[in-house]
Amino acid sequence: MTFVPPVAEQRFVLDTVVRLPELAATDRFAAASDDVVEAVLEGVGQFAAGEWAPLARIGDTVGARWTPEGVRMPDGFARAYRDYVDGGWGTIGAPEAWGGQGLPFALQTAVLDTLGAANMGFALCPTLTVGAIEALQHHGSPEQQAAYLPHLSTGEWTGTMNLTEPQAGSDVGALRATATPRGDGTWSVKGTKIYISFGDHDMAPNIVHLVLARTPDAPPGTRGISLFLVPKYRLDAAGNPGDFNDVRVVSIEHKMGLHASPTCVLSFGDDGDCIGELIGPEHGGMRAMFTMMNNARLNVGLQGVQVAEGATQRAVAYALDRVQSPRAGANSRESVAIVEHPDVRRMLLRMKAQTQGARALVYYAAGQVDRAGLNEAGARDRLELVTPLAKAHGTDIGNEIASLGIQVHGGMGYVEETGAAQYFRDARITPIYEGTNGIQAADLVGRKLGLGGGSAFAALIADIRAEAEHPDLIELVSACERVGTHLAAAGHDDRLAGSYPFLTMLSVATCGWLMERQGRAATGDAPFMAMKRAAVRFYLDQIVPEALGLRAAAMASADVLYAVPAAAFAA
Amino acid sequence: MTFVPPVAEQRFVLDTVVRLPELAATDRFAAASDDVVEAVLEGVGQFAAGEWAPLARIGDTVGARWTPEGVRMPDGFARAYRDYVDGGWGTIGAPEAWGGQGLPFALQTAVLDTLGAANMGFALCPTLTVGAIEALQHHGSPEQQAAYLPHLSTGEWTGTMNLTEPQAGSDVGALRATATPRGDGTWSVKGTKIYISFGDHDMAPNIVHLVLARTPDAPPGTRGISLFLVPKYRLDAAGNPGDFNDVRVVSIEHKMGLHASPTCVLSFGDDGDCIGELIGPEHGGMRAMFTMMNNARLNVGLQGVQVAEGATQRAVAYALDRVQSPRAGANSRESVAIVEHPDVRRMLLRMKAQTQGARALVYYAAGQVDRAGLNEAGARDRLELVTPLAKAHGTDIGNEIASLGIQVHGGMGYVEETGAAQYFRDARITPIYEGTNGIQAADLVGRKLGLGGGSAFAALIADIRAEAEHPDLIELVSACERVGTHLAAAGHDDRLAGSYPFLTMLSVATCGWLMERQGRAATGDAPFMAMKRAAVRFYLDQIVPEALGLRAAAMASADVLYAVPAAAFAA
Repeated sequence: MTFVPPVAEQRFVLDTVVRLPELAATDRFAAASDDVVEAVLEGVGQFAAGEWAPLARIGDTVGARWTPEGVRMPDGFARAYRDYVDGGWGTIGAPEAWGGQGLPFALQTAVLDTLGAANMGFALCPTLTVGAIEALQHHGSPEQQAAYLPHLSTGEWTGTMNLTEPQAGSDVGALRATATPRGDGTWSVKGTKIYISFGDHDMAPNIVHLVLARTPDAPPGTRGISLFLVPKYRLDAAGNPGDFNDVRVVSIEHKMGLHASPTCVLSFGDDGDCIGELIGPEHGGMRAMFTMMNNARLNVGLQGVQVAEGATQRAVAYALDRVQSPRAGANSRESVAIVEHPDVRRMLLRMKAQTQGARALVYYAAGQVDRAGLNEAGARDRLELVTPLAKAHGTDIGNEIASLGIQVHGGMGYVEETGAAQYFRDARITPIYEGTNGIQAADLVGRKLGLGGGSAFAALIADIRAEAEHPDLIELVSACERVGTHLAAAGHDDRLAGSYPFLTMLSVATCGWLMERQGRAATGDAPFMAMKRAAVRFYLDQIVPEALGLRAAAMASADVLYAVPAAAFAA
Repeated sequence: MTFVPPVAEQRFVLDTVVRLPELAATDRFAAASDDVVEAVLEGVGQFAAGEWAPLARIGDTVGARWTPEGVRMPDGFARAYRDYVDGGWGTIGAPEAWGGQGLPFALQTAVLDTLGAANMGFALCPTLTVGAIEALQHHGSPEQQAAYLPHLSTGEWTGTMNLTEPQAGSDVGALRATATPRGDGTWSVKGTKIYISFGDHDMAPNIVHLVLARTPDAPPGTRGISLFLVPKYRLDAAGNPGDFNDVRVVSIEHKMGLHASPTCVLSFGDDGDCIGELIGPEHGGMRAMFTMMNNARLNVGLQGVQVAEGATQRAVAYALDRVQSPRAGANSRESVAIVEHPDVRRMLLRMKAQTQGARALVYYAAGQVDRAGLNEAGARDRLELVTPLAKAHGTDIGNEIASLGIQVHGGMGYVEETGAAQYFRDARITPIYEGTNGIQAADLVGRKLGLGGGSAFAALIADIRAEAEHPDLIELVSACERVGTHLAAAGHDDRLAGSYPFLTMLSVATCGWLMERQGRAATGDAPFMAMKRAAVRFYLDQIVPEALGLRAAAMASADVLYAVPAAAFAA
């Protein structure tokens, strides 16, 4: 199968959902002209299809391997990564001051969308680098920025995030890694971190680890955490990678999928010789981490879109090609391509509609990053509110669509050589990492509903209501308003008990709103426009009503959950 | 993790849903006394936990391997299979005339439930043998029955079903394998079959292949298909396996999961020396195949229950053990087991409720097999109507629950060593084989809705309505009635366009009915009873309303599906 970059779709979403021309009308994003946007999308599409997509299978079958000398990527990855750096694809959204192109985050999102649809595991590497850039940009000292950002902005060096430890997963505050002052302003870092994506590899001359650790006498929990910059190789006087910094990759995980991405256990300071620099103030680690993670959450939601795009393309290609059985009720007894059978077509249209809906949601959120950067009123709140939706719902959709992709293939979908199974295995991590989707739901009802005294939520509801025309969408947004208002006032248990169904309802309402808007803009006879109108109609007529079915679960109290003691679950 | 056979649950479902005591009151099933049922469930539970569950992981990691001499099972499987045969676990439902115990199919279902929850891939082998027994019992000659059934009934020999060819998947009528008369009443069989589960292995001295093929001058399509019995080794004069019968295993598939089950490409008659016997009349293959497949469909639905049971047990054990974060809103800042967090508990209760609902549906269907055998009025129609529900919905639930099982584990769930991922990979084939779930939905709206002029459907609706008390369940059954009536009268395309959402609605209504009935019977303070009541309440309050959200999709016409030409899906 040939990967086809979804350029028409991306342009359309950037126009109608992100309203990129509004951004390009500002001084800051003046460079994001129509021509440039087109050139970027076409260019990265050609690059991804030509160089990254062909490596998707070897990334899965061979995968990253641990050796005593460090992690080795499969053949071809180092070269393809260098070409990515040389092509400037890592610099799209990076700050101009540091060698980036300073284009909108939303455009960078589209670039990552294409790269990840071609090769999701590979694209995780630059995704993490973006997180490191964000943290340094907002919390690093001028010296740190000067020393690291030029190399990170191009992708020449890559970045990682080091949060998790065996006893500290969702509960980051339980971490035990330490940093002690060395007396010269630097810190001696010590500890073991797990689940570090691209914690080691052989594609770049240096790796910049951002590490959460505790300083001596730090208060317990999250308030006592600080963020440290720990390069794999210390910088020499000229600013180039020099001495090894005592960061070892102990092992990599044997995962169900995403084999191209080495998930590392990293040991810092085994020989007491791991030097880190504090980023931001001592005990300010959580704030810096959230900077790093917020956009990372959008990018993980984007991974859901990536995998949905890839899985849909593959399923469509198969369904157009595979001939099986005459169409029911047809006069001809001639067998037809399975795309002609109604239930197969229903699956394919659902795949198109859900993928487009999730893309609209994630791109919308990305656009708010840019608008927040421009200090547009309300943009920061909108971004914060929709971030858990983009992360959780985007990844839920990625998983649903990858599963449908297998189903369209029938028995062939279960055989690894077809490639459909890889999407399904790769996708399954996305609802887990960067804060499980349950954590996202808790964030939505715990923090985001109350943002600005509820004004952020009210603004989103008002935005949707101002445009919504489909009666089911109008009903859904009202249901979201009622449920959200109820949950915001409920006790902890009831609020959390309804959090996940509510997150799905609000996500579908947001997607439905943005899909309906696209439907109004999709005029003319081009196949793309006709397909868009069909996908919008399917979304509004069929997916929106499903979300209405979640009302009862969202409003259910926690009573039933605690009606029996925990031990009875094993009865 | 220790697998715990769900004996209390199985007894409860056999009592309240199957109403097994009614069956035991008949002459035919008089042996199914309380004591015997208890002994069977306890016995197979001990056996499965002790011998089969420990092989689940090696079944996945090593798996069945192809060699030039045939397929080799992982270490321990041959021994564990022999112990299964020696323990009599294969004979539960087999006819007494052939050495079986003649106990109810519903009890055999419970036995397979336990074996498959312990080791789903392994349990597929006896599942297929049951299909071969059914086919021979109903369509074989007295001589064929005498020669083969005693060996199949004990499980000493195993059975396979050979339908699929590369160009003939869901469209069985497109098959090309041939059988030509040899002049002595036997047939020379030739052709290649794919996706043959346990098509070869080293656990039994003979394998009995049931093969669909075309005889010379047979009419095209399904009307020209005949069923042949083709042993791996021909029987000698004493009825023992003798000469090799020219059936070769060419390769096995590299699948995403179910690695313990060799999925074979079988080549029949490469040397022109493969002898088969006709089963039933020439051109009567489809009828015999449906006999074989109908109960196989129930058993695949049962695989959904098996994997849901295993995944739930593992997730519960993890959630009781894993300590992470204090409970939100609690006075104590002490971290708690994650089972205490509302959203984790919601996932676990959903897993319990969906697993119990699916089990009730499949066991109910199995009970109708027994009632049909007793010529109970309406039982045959009920069985035919609920078979596609049991197959499709049972396997859908298996997949949903396996995915939730990973989610409960967080990052650990994505690491293969934990075991949660295996359920997810294993489960994914079940919505595909034995007729994809889309085929089941087509069968429901195409054949089953009209069964007896619609009386079978009306009877199920009446059964549910007669007992339903929960207002949402009452609303759902009415919605099912309206949608079903609409679809039965609709054109082919509209009917098929709504088939899958309708199948889910009707399945949930049936599960909800049987869950509510269990809830009424679940009295007393035992932890099992308290858990049952909570699961029932969750099912009725939260899962039933979700199914109501599918009404719009079930009633949507096919218009939107065909609003654009097929090629536009690639636009």
